[in-house]
Amino acid sequence: MTIIETISEMQHYADHWRQQGKTIGFVPTMGYLHEGHLSLMRLAKTRADVLVVSIYVNPTQFGANEDLDTYPRDLARDQRLLESVECDVLFLPNDAIMYPPEYRTYVTVEELTENLCGTSRPRHFRGVTTIVTKLFHCVKPHVAVFGQKDAQQALIIKRMTADLNMDVEIIIGEIVREADGVAMSSRNVYLSPAEREDARVLSQSLQKAQEAIAQGERSTATLIEMIRTMIAQKPTTTIDYVSIVETKTLHDVAQIEGEVLIALAVFVGKTRLIDNALIRV
Amino acid sequence: MTIIETISEMQHYADHWRQQGKTIGFVPTMGYLHEGHLSLMRLAKTRADVLVVSIYVNPTQFGANEDLDTYPRDLARDQRLLESVECDVLFLPNDAIMYPPEYRTYVTVEELTENLCGTSRPRHFRGVTTIVTKLFHCVKPHVAVFGQKDAQQALIIKRMTADLNMDVEIIIGEIVREADGVAMSSRNVYLSPAEREDARVLSQSLQKAQEAIAQGERSTATLIEMIRTMIAQKPTTTIDYVSIVETKTLHDVAQIEGEVLIALAVFVGKTRLIDNALIRV
Repeated sequence: MTIIETISEMQHYADHWRQQGKTIGFVPTMGYLHEGHLSLMRLAKTRADVLVVSIYVNPTQFGANEDLDTYPRDLARDQRLLESVECDVLFLPNDAIMYPPEYRTYVTVEELTENLCGTSRPRHFRGVTTIVTKLFHCVKPHVAVFGQKDAQQALIIKRMTADLNMDVEIIIGEIVREADGVAMSSRNVYLSPAEREDARVLSQSLQKAQEAIAQGERSTATLIEMIRTMIAQKPTTTIDYVSIVETKTLHDVAQIEGEVLIALAVFVGKTRLIDNALIRV
Repeated sequence: MTIIETISEMQHYADHWRQQGKTIGFVPTMGYLHEGHLSLMRLAKTRADVLVVSIYVNPTQFGANEDLDTYPRDLARDQRLLESVECDVLFLPNDAIMYPPEYRTYVTVEELTENLCGTSRPRHFRGVTTIVTKLFHCVKPHVAVFGQKDAQQALIIKRMTADLNMDVEIIIGEIVREADGVAMSSRNVYLSPAEREDARVLSQSLQKAQEAIAQGERSTATLIEMIRTMIAQKPTTTIDYVSIVETKTLHDVAQIEGEVLIALAVFVGKTRLIDNALIRV
């Protein structure tokens, strides 16, 4: 695996592969890799000749009171995991080259960024769409893979890619869960044993809602109340949001109909976790 | 000259040239071409194997009360002029493919877009940076050429390209003027004979200011007053702004020092014209 730290070298590799007729698959990450990330990389490898993974903890997607400084990092472990999936290039830029002092440019997606995580993290998605645009220009991928765990991000990236005519195919990989149903996340490492136990309620409440829908429940108010009640019973939880939205606009809906997303964000202790289920009826 | 109307076909051509090792030069325009545009195309041809020119009157860079509907168009004449400079491809997208109903994404450059034309045209540069990003993703140029006539736009495009790590070299071509000094512009066609006569005062006042600087004048307040007085003497003129700014941030400066831009926007009748001079002392 080659490690590339500069933009010009990354672009040079990308141009070289493209001139050879090779396709480039790309998985952008913030590191501290887990099986969820690795599943996206394996998916990328089935769709492209060369796999590039970036590790960059992007400061512009963190709010002022969020966990930028404490976000977990373990580059040596990440490198071993990348070798295990036969990653070709690890792109490892730093803040000085990504955001020099004269930096002024941002990419924004309207509407889709306003609900759900956009409400409590107002500049988060602007940071995400900006860094993904920058990384696409560095890596020049044919295919990029993002996780369904970040459902809103996935929809926003698809919208941005189409709107800006980026010649990149966006593929969304399924959520990977621990044996007890907890969605894999780098932030799970923050949880105390008691919090880790309570964290199971996110996927459990989504499961319960899906069962109710299978039995005919269509009122989103009823379903949301069911989920909120389950989560509130756990001592370490504080709900940020529980929402049921249509997937084109991410606007709240009153009835389960067509394709909807049940999305939730919950603080477990001080750790903010998200989970979701995509429903088609 | 090949005319391409769809994004996928344009990208296909670009990929094909790139795989052959050919370099792509690009000049984006809104059509109604004049010698200023053609000079940019000739410059692009000295720097690339293939020349692509786009003609697209981009609605997102026009304000609600501006001249989107009346912007001059003459595609047959433009095609003849493009043939005369041996343009290889005319990219001719339309509103339906550039801004479909679900469109939501914008590229913004902060700070550089706030002064000068940004004050009276608040969303103009957001439209420009967004369409240029889109066109770059369609045409995939190695080199793109913009005119110094739109000095603020040139600086903003350079900033955006660097910030977003676009692998495109930005070249700025000199202002081309009519025999009497008036900067070439598609909008000059709007001018009545009396207005066309008064329009000469833009370049004349810039010339006068440069002579004063050559003779030692360093106060921008004095120079701006000199320019404003000259322009106000013409009956059909209304000044939008006369500013002297430093070129890194486009902030106003009190003294002529290092590299500064004298920029002005003046309504001549109902037609808004711009002109500028780059000064190094």
